[in-house]
Amino acid sequence: MPPPPPEPYDPTGIQHHTISTLTFTSGTTLHDLTIAYREYNPAAASTTGTVLIPTCFAGKINTTLSFNKPPCSALSEYHVVVVAMLSNGESSSSSNKSFFPGPGELHYEDLVHAQYDLLVHGLGVKQLEAVIGFSMGGQQAYHWAVMYPDFVKRMVGICTSARTSGHNYAFLEGPIAAMTNSIDYVAWKQVKAKIAHGDAVGEHLKEVRPKKGLAAWARTYAAWLTSAGWFRDREWEKMGCKDLEEWMGLREAGYAEWDADDLLTKARMWQVGDIGNTKKGVVGTLRHPPGDDQALVDALNSITAKVLLMPCRTDQYFPPGDSEEEVKSLTNVTLKVIESSWGHMAGGGVNPVDVEFMDAKIAEHLRR
Amino acid sequence: MPPPPPEPYDPTGIQHHTISTLTFTSGTTLHDLTIAYREYNPAAASTTGTVLIPTCFAGKINTTLSFNKPPCSALSEYHVVVVAMLSNGESSSSSNKSFFPGPGELHYEDLVHAQYDLLVHGLGVKQLEAVIGFSMGGQQAYHWAVMYPDFVKRMVGICTSARTSGHNYAFLEGPIAAMTNSIDYVAWKQVKAKIAHGDAVGEHLKEVRPKKGLAAWARTYAAWLTSAGWFRDREWEKMGCKDLEEWMGLREAGYAEWDADDLLTKARMWQVGDIGNTKKGVVGTLRHPPGDDQALVDALNSITAKVLLMPCRTDQYFPPGDSEEEVKSLTNVTLKVIESSWGHMAGGGVNPVDVEFMDAKIAEHLRR
Repeated sequence: MPPPPPEPYDPTGIQHHTISTLTFTSGTTLHDLTIAYREYNPAAASTTGTVLIPTCFAGKINTTLSFNKPPCSALSEYHVVVVAMLSNGESSSSSNKSFFPGPGELHYEDLVHAQYDLLVHGLGVKQLEAVIGFSMGGQQAYHWAVMYPDFVKRMVGICTSARTSGHNYAFLEGPIAAMTNSIDYVAWKQVKAKIAHGDAVGEHLKEVRPKKGLAAWARTYAAWLTSAGWFRDREWEKMGCKDLEEWMGLREAGYAEWDADDLLTKARMWQVGDIGNTKKGVVGTLRHPPGDDQALVDALNSITAKVLLMPCRTDQYFPPGDSEEEVKSLTNVTLKVIESSWGHMAGGGVNPVDVEFMDAKIAEHLRR
Repeated sequence: MPPPPPEPYDPTGIQHHTISTLTFTSGTTLHDLTIAYREYNPAAASTTGTVLIPTCFAGKINTTLSFNKPPCSALSEYHVVVVAMLSNGESSSSSNKSFFPGPGELHYEDLVHAQYDLLVHGLGVKQLEAVIGFSMGGQQAYHWAVMYPDFVKRMVGICTSARTSGHNYAFLEGPIAAMTNSIDYVAWKQVKAKIAHGDAVGEHLKEVRPKKGLAAWARTYAAWLTSAGWFRDREWEKMGCKDLEEWMGLREAGYAEWDADDLLTKARMWQVGDIGNTKKGVVGTLRHPPGDDQALVDALNSITAKVLLMPCRTDQYFPPGDSEEEVKSLTNVTLKVIESSWGHMAGGGVNPVDVEFMDAKIAEHLRR
């Protein structure tokens, strides 16, 4: 019997903050943006303090590891805010808002500006004990530390980088090309455009989804997630799969409900992520390298937060070597490598031993 | 100025051998198959001896490193036969033959049977001093060593494996999914089917190619070719590219002239490559793991050829760890790791230092 599909969407505890006006780095100004978030333990805001956790690429609020529930305890005593990044389908995104920045038009800076509005104007937070993020969540954390140095006391970056590497950029070209060249993505875009334009569209068309494009996305992404050793040890068997095709089926199921443009917008943002551009006040454009190297070093140098970096030894697209490079330019930094065959997924919290490791290191970091 | 596109197809020195009847492992029997090859130094066949070099996945006869021309010299004194694998577009393939095994229907065993016919009945070769292959060429070499132990004195496997790993299988799902779900692959198949059926087809349709599918193929493949360190060091600059998009353009140009089904047929064969299946007399089916582990060990144990394995340290889909596992079951084996950031491409001969290393190790191996 094949393993069960992913859990259905869980809206437990999710709240919404409205931003009346936000000017994006691209120059666009939009009104009434929604930021979805979940708060834990708000009473601790004025005592222990607040920790912010932005979602990762394929993350939803309630699938995000928040380090405050068993088996974790690092954040049990803190006011924890898990925030959905713009374009994840919970916060404002092209899937739920008529006009929204599309692929190439949204940047990490916009996410951080919106999250700042939530914290300061929505929740009355004055300072963060820490911002903690995995993968794209970690890139948001890095941007936070550069853009609001006085607001962020500590930063934890899990399987992430201050600038998206060329290798990572190139890997993302794969799923993006698979989606944008797929047989049903173009058709889906046409239907969406008609609906947006107010044209009559048959009822059956309203439910059209780029299923083949999403499936191709899942398959082009799959082999990057873990590591060669993980496959050698057949770890997918532990997920209840009898062969790799069943595991591929799980990957497809994981993307089946996503909006294709939400994914593309996030992937394009990820490709040009570079805290060096933030510091210079320019916006990443769609090419690599995204900015100049000195600006990146300057941005790393400017970080005053205490930084904890936890790459995974076998991560194929955020490898420890990139974190080691960053460490050279950071003032107050601790590097702890997750020794795991789970590659990038180690940081997402799928493997109990790795979760225990991260939880312990985060607890230590909060005592610094 | 962007770098020039790849060299146009080079037919220099290519000859053709006809096989009147070949029964494929799938059960199909076909007539008048063509095997394309190029011979160097045939007079040496009866003195120094013959070395066979099958093509790799995206290889043509004259783009294959043959180790007998400057700066190489390991094979200068040998009779060298470079042979195009079935489905590479030079030997019989679905692109040049009306009825030919499609994706999932061709296997390494068929390639080796056809090459044996060329050598024995076409060229009168009695024994091989060595069979040398890179990547899928190395998997052919491994199959040769198992299927014709008395015929093969030495084997050299460069960036290859006896069984395609789960990680490698999963990586290949990416480009395959990108192609088969692409907007023009399906249209192209329909035109091909009409032509095959003898239906009238507009002249303009005869030139239809799945350009978007081929471009998506190139982009899903690109980040796998080299290594994270190669991208970190911006080695693509040495290829004349000003940014990664130009390098992606080169990758697209490299696949633009390929027949989509020829690529898919080779990729599916690669996915189920497993010398363990050869030994058991069964054919790999499209799932992973392809065969049982004891059969793989038995097949490795059965190899009497002197084996030289040269994985590249940073190869992302034929990693040295897989070669190290194989070494445990091989009787007469030498393992020499190519220390290079060029990843899989190191074995293809793009980096002069790596070519020099391989040439020297092959020369040593031929003296064993």
